[in-house]
Amino acid sequence: PAYVHIYDVLDGIKTGGTFMLNSPWSADEMETRLPAAMRRTIAKKKLTFYNIDAVRIAGEIGLGGRINMIMQTAFFKAANVIPVDKAIYYLKDQIRRMFGLKGDQIVQMNFEAVDHTLDHLVKIDVPAAWANAQDEAAAESGLPTWVREVMNPILAQQGDKLPVSKFTMDGVFPVGNSQYEKRGVAINVPEWIMDNCIQCNQCSMVCPHAAIRPFLVSDAELAKAPEGFEAKTAVGKEFKDQGLNFRIQVFSEDCMGCGNCADICPAKQPALVMKPLDTQIEAQVRNLNYALSLPLREDLAGRSSVKGSQFHQPLLEFSGACAGCGETPYAKLVTQLFGERMVIGNATGCTSIWGGSAPAIPYCVNKDGHGPTWGNSLFEDPGEFTYGMLLGHLQQRTRLAQLVRKAVTSDIDSEIKEALSGWLANMKDATGSRQYGDRLKILLAKYKDDELLAEISSMANLFTKKSYWVFAGDGAAYDIAYGGIDHILASGEDINVLVFDTEVYSNTGGQSSKATPTGSVAKFAASGKKTSKKDLGAMAMTYGYVYVANIGMGANKNHTLKAILEAEAYDGPSLLMAYSPCINHGINKGMGKTQEETRLAVECGYWPLYRYNPLLKKEGKNPFILDSKEPKGNLKEFLSGEIRCASLAIVFPEEAERLQTQLEEEFAERYLLLKQKADQEPPMVITTPGAGAGDTDSDVCTLTSTAEHGGDEPCDDGRAG
Amino acid sequence: PAYVHIYDVLDGIKTGGTFMLNSPWSADEMETRLPAAMRRTIAKKKLTFYNIDAVRIAGEIGLGGRINMIMQTAFFKAANVIPVDKAIYYLKDQIRRMFGLKGDQIVQMNFEAVDHTLDHLVKIDVPAAWANAQDEAAAESGLPTWVREVMNPILAQQGDKLPVSKFTMDGVFPVGNSQYEKRGVAINVPEWIMDNCIQCNQCSMVCPHAAIRPFLVSDAELAKAPEGFEAKTAVGKEFKDQGLNFRIQVFSEDCMGCGNCADICPAKQPALVMKPLDTQIEAQVRNLNYALSLPLREDLAGRSSVKGSQFHQPLLEFSGACAGCGETPYAKLVTQLFGERMVIGNATGCTSIWGGSAPAIPYCVNKDGHGPTWGNSLFEDPGEFTYGMLLGHLQQRTRLAQLVRKAVTSDIDSEIKEALSGWLANMKDATGSRQYGDRLKILLAKYKDDELLAEISSMANLFTKKSYWVFAGDGAAYDIAYGGIDHILASGEDINVLVFDTEVYSNTGGQSSKATPTGSVAKFAASGKKTSKKDLGAMAMTYGYVYVANIGMGANKNHTLKAILEAEAYDGPSLLMAYSPCINHGINKGMGKTQEETRLAVECGYWPLYRYNPLLKKEGKNPFILDSKEPKGNLKEFLSGEIRCASLAIVFPEEAERLQTQLEEEFAERYLLLKQKADQEPPMVITTPGAGAGDTDSDVCTLTSTAEHGGDEPCDDGRAG
Repeated sequence: PAYVHIYDVLDGIKTGGTFMLNSPWSADEMETRLPAAMRRTIAKKKLTFYNIDAVRIAGEIGLGGRINMIMQTAFFKAANVIPVDKAIYYLKDQIRRMFGLKGDQIVQMNFEAVDHTLDHLVKIDVPAAWANAQDEAAAESGLPTWVREVMNPILAQQGDKLPVSKFTMDGVFPVGNSQYEKRGVAINVPEWIMDNCIQCNQCSMVCPHAAIRPFLVSDAELAKAPEGFEAKTAVGKEFKDQGLNFRIQVFSEDCMGCGNCADICPAKQPALVMKPLDTQIEAQVRNLNYALSLPLREDLAGRSSVKGSQFHQPLLEFSGACAGCGETPYAKLVTQLFGERMVIGNATGCTSIWGGSAPAIPYCVNKDGHGPTWGNSLFEDPGEFTYGMLLGHLQQRTRLAQLVRKAVTSDIDSEIKEALSGWLANMKDATGSRQYGDRLKILLAKYKDDELLAEISSMANLFTKKSYWVFAGDGAAYDIAYGGIDHILASGEDINVLVFDTEVYSNTGGQSSKATPTGSVAKFAASGKKTSKKDLGAMAMTYGYVYVANIGMGANKNHTLKAILEAEAYDGPSLLMAYSPCINHGINKGMGKTQEETRLAVECGYWPLYRYNPLLKKEGKNPFILDSKEPKGNLKEFLSGEIRCASLAIVFPEEAERLQTQLEEEFAERYLLLKQKADQEPPMVITTPGAGAGDTDSDVCTLTSTAEHGGDEPCDDGRAG
Repeated sequence: PAYVHIYDVLDGIKTGGTFMLNSPWSADEMETRLPAAMRRTIAKKKLTFYNIDAVRIAGEIGLGGRINMIMQTAFFKAANVIPVDKAIYYLKDQIRRMFGLKGDQIVQMNFEAVDHTLDHLVKIDVPAAWANAQDEAAAESGLPTWVREVMNPILAQQGDKLPVSKFTMDGVFPVGNSQYEKRGVAINVPEWIMDNCIQCNQCSMVCPHAAIRPFLVSDAELAKAPEGFEAKTAVGKEFKDQGLNFRIQVFSEDCMGCGNCADICPAKQPALVMKPLDTQIEAQVRNLNYALSLPLREDLAGRSSVKGSQFHQPLLEFSGACAGCGETPYAKLVTQLFGERMVIGNATGCTSIWGGSAPAIPYCVNKDGHGPTWGNSLFEDPGEFTYGMLLGHLQQRTRLAQLVRKAVTSDIDSEIKEALSGWLANMKDATGSRQYGDRLKILLAKYKDDELLAEISSMANLFTKKSYWVFAGDGAAYDIAYGGIDHILASGEDINVLVFDTEVYSNTGGQSSKATPTGSVAKFAASGKKTSKKDLGAMAMTYGYVYVANIGMGANKNHTLKAILEAEAYDGPSLLMAYSPCINHGINKGMGKTQEETRLAVECGYWPLYRYNPLLKKEGKNPFILDSKEPKGNLKEFLSGEIRCASLAIVFPEEAERLQTQLEEEFAERYLLLKQKADQEPPMVITTPGAGAGDTDSDVCTLTSTAEHGGDEPCDDGRAG
């Protein structure tokens, strides 16, 4: 249904042709639902016009949103290229071949899909009046010019008709324009049941598309709200003191309809219920517009709790990820925590598709215009790419610190001297450097004639300490980009690596990676992978000065948040491996259960949670903490719930049994090793990790120079090796 | 001295020019020592001719073979471009700058070198008769045509004058021609003192250039030997039974004179004494030629002992490595053990320089024409490069096995059927596959008309199981090629990786690598490396199915040999890290003590010896064995013996103290971790490693094929990931 307004789907159709629409609309509704231009074409070109409600049929049969077999059957009926009986025979034969591996149930459902199609195909009688349908008055869109003139034509697949003059001189695309896409492709979207809500904000955290968010509303604002804009007294002293109310706002048109939010809602009575998009859209669009017009109240509950983090604006929204994507909730969370000062070097993969899909870029900026700096170089170099940006900034900040130090010792007003000294003392602290930096920006404006202060002022974009991130899938992190990632982990510099571990090359089509576990079926591992999953975490921990954590949002949101915060705060390299369920896994329960699937993965020992924090060594503690409980012994049960593992048993039952037993043994051994590591008294020779702090606090930088070295000069040695 | 015969050193000199020679020859000796052509040029062009015995002066002062400062002083005297007093002033100033870091003693020795030069500069009176010196009759060289016509001109730096027609059509260079180079550049070479020798063969094992080897001689052969060709009754039943005698033969002209052989000789009275080359060359060349004419007696003592291994012909000889090189003894040993069936993928680095230096290639073949297949692709891909060769052969051998299986079930003579079956059963065994293969080669010759057997015969080069090796320095293995090496270790395939760990980019000029330890001075780490040495072994051990060993020949030759044999025999990936002292270390004792330096490195805990053998798991044993003793606490003493570490204390004493203490702590912690690993009861979930054996014994190969699969078919899945 959404496409009739976005695409010119009848472009090029011949007179007397056939047009088939998949929509829930009745013949009568077509009059109001179809744009006038479309109705004119249908009537003038004398098209045969069919409608089929494939979504409903698929849903009834149990196929969820999978409508392809229904649409194929309908196509053969309408196109009549071969006798329809023959077409159905071939379709069924093909179903047997394609889905045999996935089990008889799936074959049967697809058979049913084929069989039910013809009964539900509705031929629409086209009113003659359609030939003269009058165009609707074009509503004032309120969209930015670029979105109207460039993005929307590209989205409507008319990009090749754009004149060059429509683009900016340097070809730059604005960011944060996925908010204008309004796809409206969800079948069902969540409806908030206010009375049931316990205000935990977990729904917001797990949403892959930032399409459900908490808002804080004052009583006065609430009084002016449109009808149906409900809110309840906000729980928590920090909110009550300000007389604020709490509301969950759904972004219905941006929602992909996966349902993870409703699934994980921990309220006694569900506070989120999935409802057809149609029933929600009108009221929620109005409510949303009002919610977005309210002042953002981000900092009242801090950023270090699940609840508090969700009042912060996600600087990644409405990305191109699949419904239920296991990756984006992590990425979105990171932008809520550090987005305004983030630099991301991205590896080619799903992260570059959902993160950098032109023209609708999902990374955006906050009200101050600050947001993640995001760049994708290659599949093989996100480590080096990010490292280069870090080194560049490090040099620039060193120059800045030199200037500031010079200014502090010169004859300037005490007011500015104090701010400069404060910045110097806090330049490696995210909050402090920003606070003093913001103060400096104001103060420095007064000293435009002072050459030194003017130069400092010109470098204001370097005041806030930045946060460096490598975003990589397992294909990059375990395989193709591993050499460089290992290199930056070894460097000791303050870079964070976030691995979205789907355990398979997701974006390139499901090839086995070194993260793929024993027995998993993937391309290049059609009879089950024979070797075990590479233990990337164990490898990184051998350095002793790398922060390492295995996280799984669906299993433990607090743990995920804590590990991300610790990793970012650690003044050295960090590696976070984030369990990311994916369409490639073939989760039986569907992509609305990806958070739940993560919980099961942790529970059965498939994905243990842990943290290795080098700072604990300095306190004389074991740096390794095993955060998940003893596996429950239901690993095989977990495996049977995903087609990537379960399909092997259908084709090669003995090999499946052998490999799954091997996997069970491997994971049991790995867990015991982790437990041993966590329990045993580690050798406690307290070392000063070679990380950032150690380097830059040193007075020694180069062999030949005898000049004075300050405390923040980067050494030209001992870094890259 | 050697150069007057190799190079046309007076090519292009002007009339009235000055020629300075560094030689031990007196004025009188010049008549017989210099070639006639050289004497003619000196006389005809009226050259001023100086000689200086720089080697003797340097030796007396304590500079060893370092003659550069003496030759520079002599140059300034002879060239007279600036007043010699001024030249000496500048030279000394420069000495202070260049060597200040290396200590006052070195500065003083170089001052002395400058001061002693002028006294020892001898002006030679040129006899008028030299103008008519008659060319010596060209001796019958006995050299292969290619060596005479291509290699020698190139070595004489006349390669650009070679016509294209001298080269083979495809540009191929023959291998094994370093034996014709006969550089004669050693100052001192070992002399064998037969009566003291205990026949342990250690001298032969540690020689970096294969320039000292044991020979076995029968009484009859000994009777016919030239005068001075001594041998003593060979110790050991296997030799006595055959009435053999033992002799150590020095290859005086190929020796680089490092002296490691003499240094490690364990006999009560030294059985090897370093003597000036001049005193040795004539007799030893004669003896060597006789020794080489004797039948090779390789297999009497097997290959699995230090002594036995050394009777095997090294298939890497007289390479371009530095005198005392720490790398080549390992490489040479590997060729003695597996050379005739080796495939080597080499990473760019020192290994490609000493191993692939055109035109004198040091890799050679045995009497059957079999030797290592050696190839160098890039710095970054020795893993992938070798893996590709392995996969190619695997496919070919699979085809061969299919043909053999077909032949075995067809109607052929029992004699050949038996040999084919034997080969099939032994195709993965090095000895068995060769034995049956050799038998097949003879038998198959009889069946040229049988199409199937003829095809099998055409694949005879695949009969013997090959041995795959990656040769890589630490720059490649730890840094640049690490991604690919990690990938092949993960693959589970039967590849061996030998890392020549000099802990620094040796060939590219001494840059820091991830193998460089904390505090070591290198390029990019001029004030001492701040981060610790990457623990490559610990990382590889996380796979659980990779054989891993840390070896140090000078510390334990049996251990080195055992680890290499175990690694090669293991039907899966192996990683050997070999401690390799290097000129870049600045070893105070000199490069004649590289074996001894390895012993010290192990003793002080700088380089612990260990093995991780996955096969032990199957026996219910701890796969990890710590093979070296508790460190003696003399790590700092060890560090003070190498300039790479010691020089930091001169420039940045505090930083040196800090980093060395950090290093001490790191290495202490690492040792404790190793000890813990060796002592503790490991989690004993017995897994079937995903290594080669597991893969190929499976009956399951591809998802779609339902055809019968044999036991040796390579699966197209689960391999590369």
